[in-house]
Amino acid sequence: MNNRLTIADKTFNSRLFTGTGKFSHNQLMEEALLASGSELVTVALKRVDVQNEQDDILKHLNHAQFHLLPNTSGARNAEEAVLAAQLAREALGTNWLKLEIHPDPKYLMPDPIETLKAAEQLVKLGFVVLPYIHADPVLCKRLEEAGTAAVMPLGSPIGSNKGLKTVDFLEIIVEQSNVPVVVDAGIGAPSDAAKAMELGADAVLVNTAIAVSPNPIDMGKAFKMAVEAGRLAFEAKLAQTSTKASASSPLTAFLFDEE
Amino acid sequence: MNNRLTIADKTFNSRLFTGTGKFSHNQLMEEALLASGSELVTVALKRVDVQNEQDDILKHLNHAQFHLLPNTSGARNAEEAVLAAQLAREALGTNWLKLEIHPDPKYLMPDPIETLKAAEQLVKLGFVVLPYIHADPVLCKRLEEAGTAAVMPLGSPIGSNKGLKTVDFLEIIVEQSNVPVVVDAGIGAPSDAAKAMELGADAVLVNTAIAVSPNPIDMGKAFKMAVEAGRLAFEAKLAQTSTKASASSPLTAFLFDEE
Amino acid sequence: MNNRLTIADKTFNSRLFTGTGKFSHNQLMEEALLASGSELVTVALKRVDVQNEQDDILKHLNHAQFHLLPNTSGARNAEEAVLAAQLAREALGTNWLKLEIHPDPKYLMPDPIETLKAAEQLVKLGFVVLPYIHADPVLCKRLEEAGTAAVMPLGSPIGSNKGLKTVDFLEIIVEQSNVPVVVDAGIGAPSDAAKAMELGADAVLVNTAIAVSPNPIDMGKAFKMAVEAGRLAFEAKLAQTSTKASASSPLTAFLFDEE
Amino acid sequence: MNNRLTIADKTFNSRLFTGTGKFSHNQLMEEALLASGSELVTVALKRVDVQNEQDDILKHLNHAQFHLLPNTSGARNAEEAVLAAQLAREALGTNWLKLEIHPDPKYLMPDPIETLKAAEQLVKLGFVVLPYIHADPVLCKRLEEAGTAAVMPLGSPIGSNKGLKTVDFLEIIVEQSNVPVVVDAGIGAPSDAAKAMELGADAVLVNTAIAVSPNPIDMGKAFKMAVEAGRLAFEAKLAQTSTKASASSPLTAFLFDEE
Repeated sequence: MNNRLTIADKTFNSRLFTGTGKFSHNQLMEEALLASGSELVTVALKRVDVQNEQDDILKHLNHAQFHLLPNTSGARNAEEAVLAAQLAREALGTNWLKLEIHPDPKYLMPDPIETLKAAEQLVKLGFVVLPYIHADPVLCKRLEEAGTAAVMPLGSPIGSNKGLKTVDFLEIIVEQSNVPVVVDAGIGAPSDAAKAMELGADAVLVNTAIAVSPNPIDMGKAFKMAVEAGRLAFEAKLAQTSTKASASSPLTAFLFDEE
Repeated sequence: MNNRLTIADKTFNSRLFTGTGKFSHNQLMEEALLASGSELVTVALKRVDVQNEQDDILKHLNHAQFHLLPNTSGARNAEEAVLAAQLAREALGTNWLKLEIHPDPKYLMPDPIETLKAAEQLVKLGFVVLPYIHADPVLCKRLEEAGTAAVMPLGSPIGSNKGLKTVDFLEIIVEQSNVPVVVDAGIGAPSDAAKAMELGADAVLVNTAIAVSPNPIDMGKAFKMAVEAGRLAFEAKLAQTSTKASASSPLTAFLFDEE
Repeated sequence: MNNRLTIADKTFNSRLFTGTGKFSHNQLMEEALLASGSELVTVALKRVDVQNEQDDILKHLNHAQFHLLPNTSGARNAEEAVLAAQLAREALGTNWLKLEIHPDPKYLMPDPIETLKAAEQLVKLGFVVLPYIHADPVLCKRLEEAGTAAVMPLGSPIGSNKGLKTVDFLEIIVEQSNVPVVVDAGIGAPSDAAKAMELGADAVLVNTAIAVSPNPIDMGKAFKMAVEAGRLAFEAKLAQTSTKASASSPLTAFLFDEE
Repeated sequence: MNNRLTIADKTFNSRLFTGTGKFSHNQLMEEALLASGSELVTVALKRVDVQNEQDDILKHLNHAQFHLLPNTSGARNAEEAVLAAQLAREALGTNWLKLEIHPDPKYLMPDPIETLKAAEQLVKLGFVVLPYIHADPVLCKRLEEAGTAAVMPLGSPIGSNKGLKTVDFLEIIVEQSNVPVVVDAGIGAPSDAAKAMELGADAVLVNTAIAVSPNPIDMGKAFKMAVEAGRLAFEAKLAQTSTKASASSPLTAFLFDEE
């Protein structure tokens, strides 16, 4: 199957990455993530008790198919992010990292300057860096040049469930990127995930929309199918849109015209 | 499985209805429709040679899972549509009918007046009528009152692939309808189909987007998955959208704040 | 000035039609409508006390520039609308009529069937009929053929302030119509009114957005300017949109390239 | 009049800033800019012949109401931008500067890293800096902290005329900014400019949409009115949108109900 996704040293069958926040309890999280088929799961350093080997959340993520992607959520600048990354690497035994730096507590929009600065340092420190950023095509290029393993532009503000509000910019990013593009944040429904894939994203990361659904397990399954549908449609290529209508049933003449 | 769809006397496992126009050849059509899992397939009377038992298109639709839904595409008024319906019933041996009346050859927008008039007559003549109409909530109610088995409001002009341009009105229709709502026309991508299902449509009808894709078979599969994903998400219930961001990773404090 | 608008026997300098509902008091309504420059003002029959010559609302509309456009708001079918129209003509001394028929009290979506039926009767009875309808291109043509003086397709549900949710259909209506197209309902901001004019509407009707603004007088002025701006842009013709960026400052080379 | 706009040491009656590129000839540019009422006009350093006192474009901008805003269009990094800024200050006798850095010639998306770096230097060198940037709320805060006189987030890619594709982010920027917010790039129609003003932008910068219209003079006037309309609506405050319809004409009962 040639449509698997490779990032750095790992290859994924699933293009649906997931997050672990906001679930009502960890057992439900575990079942929903299993249902989603996700193979890359992000977890906030703050939520992991690094002193405690039996830390509850990690126990629930202890499945062969789950690769952990620690994130630096809560870091306000490059220095904090680099420190958090090092703690995470030690605690979780992985050099993969979702780099998140957002100084503003209200909208959690990422900081482009600090993110690039931290990315440059973390790449040198041997991390596989997946930076969460605004849908900024130039910033994506600079991160790629700095050696990040992917770029993670946002669809809309984190947790807003507003969907893809950055389509015009995501299209430019997809066109120009030489590393995988993972659309992160704002995806509120399976249709949003499908659309991101249809426009050529390599993967999506979904958390809130699954976690706060009244039925996270079924919602995990729904996202799984939608991501696969969107990817398949991208590979099969969508038809063009047109301004005029065009009959599906060939209308060379009206039904009872004499021909 | 309690989420099957029943219309009149038939129950469907698949909520993806399909059309048969615009495929480059009938063999490809057959394979794409099989891949889509569709169980209700619309066919234009004009494309069926009613004199010829070996008519090619019907031969390709001769599968147990395919129910035929003849349509009156090309009819300009109620009279033509009723006549076409009767010919179709005789030729194809089914009283199911997709009622389409569009006097304008450019945009093929349906005629609300003639459609209601024809629907009233056809219901009396024993047809199971599925009328193709604008996303007009009042017209939908009147058709329902006239006895149609479903309503088929459009997403955007036929064949435009523009997607769901009528969401605000589809939501009202779904809320008010007592018969199944099938979104027809304009669905250009699996994400559009998923979105229609997420907002509560009972099914979608797709033709152009599958038929004119460079790879109709895979596109048929993609739509199949997207429709299932959208339906599952509808049943699981989507999370609310919100204006403010909300961290997936609980951010009660910044990462290195003293607590 | 050749861009004045003529409907039936009247010519208007202003392409902003207004409504009289929802103002906190009639004095404020009067001032806001004067500020808006509107020359055609719709008033619900129910709000006019036809027995009372000193009826308050009419006193406030007693300005030379205001032409009254009685409407049949509250009518549920053609019969009620025709009766209301006749009462209005007698009470207000005008044969102009905004025909509104909406059987559903929740969304107030218009009824296409009853509206056409009433329009046919009212035209025969000598009324100048401006029907309020869904943005349905075929219905617009049928009303035009029935002799209505204009068509009034909606932008979004009445009073929703959602703006222009029917752009794809308004464009078809504008392209095909031989009578003036007045976009009615849903216009929530001056930018919506400007956009309706830019796409070729002949006029807009605004009520709620002015009446419920904290400052109806200034909002009336703002709509006046926006409508004029949109019309002027339509006449001057908008530039095309393009997918790629294109520097406003000619960028034949980068700034310090050697040439 | 208390709604004038002050940036640094200048106060403007007009909130419409304009550009000088793409006009078919300079005489037409002059007339269109005069018609627009604009008081701040951006000009690319490359287009000014700094050796020639009679430089044609400057002659056409020699009006008391026009303040010049040299821009660094074509600069690929901070170093080039700072050099260009110094040349512009010397040549044009103004320390105002529109800072533009876009390394990518196809979409001309701005570089957040180099823009902040150049802004920091230019502020220290005594420039009044107005940086052109993506609609990135965190970057806007950092530029403000660096001492820029305003921020100029984009609506959509330069010259695309696609309108406001960044509304969700512009709203955050407007809410958080302590310096004026000028929406720049992508504004393709007066309705777009009105909408930017309605959501609280302090000004807009328009170039392509005026310059490439078949009638730039009238289009300049149309933008003037639209900007004023949008600002007035912002000050008067827009009404809320709502999901349900709400009759403009109070519909306590249907028209012929017995009460």
